[in-house]
Amino acid sequence: MKKIHLIGLGLLGGSFSLALRKVMPEITFTGFDANTKHMEDARTLGIIDEASEEIPEDADVVILATPVDTLEDLLVKSLEQIKENTLVIDFGSTKNALCQTVANHPKRSQYLAGHPIAGTEYSGPKAAKEDLLEKKVFIICEMEKTDVHLKGMAYDIFEALNMKLRFMDPEEHDRQLAFVSHLSHISSFMLGKTVLDKMEDDRNIFDMAGSGFASTVRLAKSSPGMWAPIMKANKENILESLDAYITNLQEFRNKISEEQTSALHSEMTDINKIGEILDLGK
Amino acid sequence: MKKIHLIGLGLLGGSFSLALRKVMPEITFTGFDANTKHMEDARTLGIIDEASEEIPEDADVVILATPVDTLEDLLVKSLEQIKENTLVIDFGSTKNALCQTVANHPKRSQYLAGHPIAGTEYSGPKAAKEDLLEKKVFIICEMEKTDVHLKGMAYDIFEALNMKLRFMDPEEHDRQLAFVSHLSHISSFMLGKTVLDKMEDDRNIFDMAGSGFASTVRLAKSSPGMWAPIMKANKENILESLDAYITNLQEFRNKISEEQTSALHSEMTDINKIGEILDLGK
Repeated sequence: MKKIHLIGLGLLGGSFSLALRKVMPEITFTGFDANTKHMEDARTLGIIDEASEEIPEDADVVILATPVDTLEDLLVKSLEQIKENTLVIDFGSTKNALCQTVANHPKRSQYLAGHPIAGTEYSGPKAAKEDLLEKKVFIICEMEKTDVHLKGMAYDIFEALNMKLRFMDPEEHDRQLAFVSHLSHISSFMLGKTVLDKMEDDRNIFDMAGSGFASTVRLAKSSPGMWAPIMKANKENILESLDAYITNLQEFRNKISEEQTSALHSEMTDINKIGEILDLGK
Repeated sequence: MKKIHLIGLGLLGGSFSLALRKVMPEITFTGFDANTKHMEDARTLGIIDEASEEIPEDADVVILATPVDTLEDLLVKSLEQIKENTLVIDFGSTKNALCQTVANHPKRSQYLAGHPIAGTEYSGPKAAKEDLLEKKVFIICEMEKTDVHLKGMAYDIFEALNMKLRFMDPEEHDRQLAFVSHLSHISSFMLGKTVLDKMEDDRNIFDMAGSGFASTVRLAKSSPGMWAPIMKANKENILESLDAYITNLQEFRNKISEEQTSALHSEMTDINKIGEILDLGK
């Protein structure tokens, strides 16, 4: 492996390059970002060696790390451009539509559908961190459809990055991610909105906010350019998770209204077990 | 100031004592907790020097750090027991009902209505940390009703603890806290419930959860014994905040359903400013 071409030089693409360059310094990174400032920053920060709008002919791997609404076109275009020994990997947060788009593509075996479960509420190359992917889960969908030789190259990369590989069906991926990622972003954005609206009356409300509020509302700082497209791409699953969440809130609201203190107590006790489950995963 | 009596030896009471003992080592701490194990732990951990069910006659300050449903009775009982130079301070998360209960009490001037904006998702004396209160806000309600001399003692304590004093009307306190604290606990509990319910189908769902989910759901580990009573005590304000939150979620849901991607984008961009506002408060 000598050359990797990165399309999308933001938080994920940037962190991927910074981490991989540490353990595989022999690799040359080229890259492109539609945002000129991001491309300059990526060069300054050492995320890429050279800017290139085209995929270099000798690229071994092409990484697509752009918002999900751009990925379908970009994936098809990239597959058309690459030579037979090049692998394309995407980092998109939704996988089903993408896998369907290229299901019958003649170069399907040169594509690996991936999703690193890592991120922060910040975006752009300046937010990139060389330890962002360390020990995080990397989900691969439809791994059997990728060429064995090319897939080996991907495994080398993700093992070098110390990531934990998981294999899933793309539909299952999108359904699960709606619940454990997309929903919590929406709950956080709406919590932020509710308190911002309230601030119209109480200018000093944030002075009263503790670390609990800050933690719960943290994801409301996330990039709209990344998240609006996810809400379209994974619409059905997100609506299912959001409807379940709203129903739970309404039922809990009614218990508060009726002062069912012991029912509230026992419900919260049941939910407390999420702490143990999350700690287990550490 | 020679002696402080603590009623409630959990996270807040314990952290208060550990921090104050560092800067005012001359003070003796006595204390009581209805939970016998907590009382033993508090002694072992150095939170109190001596267990005492009664308020010692020579206590300068009595701190009430128990769940809000116990505070009204406890406050009235404590005021009846103390001598004229003793101050009672409570740490309850709601203030209005408590201030009303003692509004015409003959010893009203020996009470200071307080609320330290600090906590973690854990509870009990073992969760106490000597830096929990450091640089946090301490809200005082109806400060004009407390005796000047006794209030001076309270200021000495909270300044020694390096806390930032804020003064508020108790009704305003309860209204604001519903939005910046109580609502985020409920949103977090219900997010936890929604994902736990989903886990019935997908056993491995938590493997896919990233740090964003963990942060948003963190408060779902909080103590039901503390939170169920808050939901009763601050019912009207919590219902107002919860209804606003549910309405925002439903409107956002409908935009997702109608694929109003640019409206979602612009709404999230507006909410992003919460990041700057929260950072300002640091």
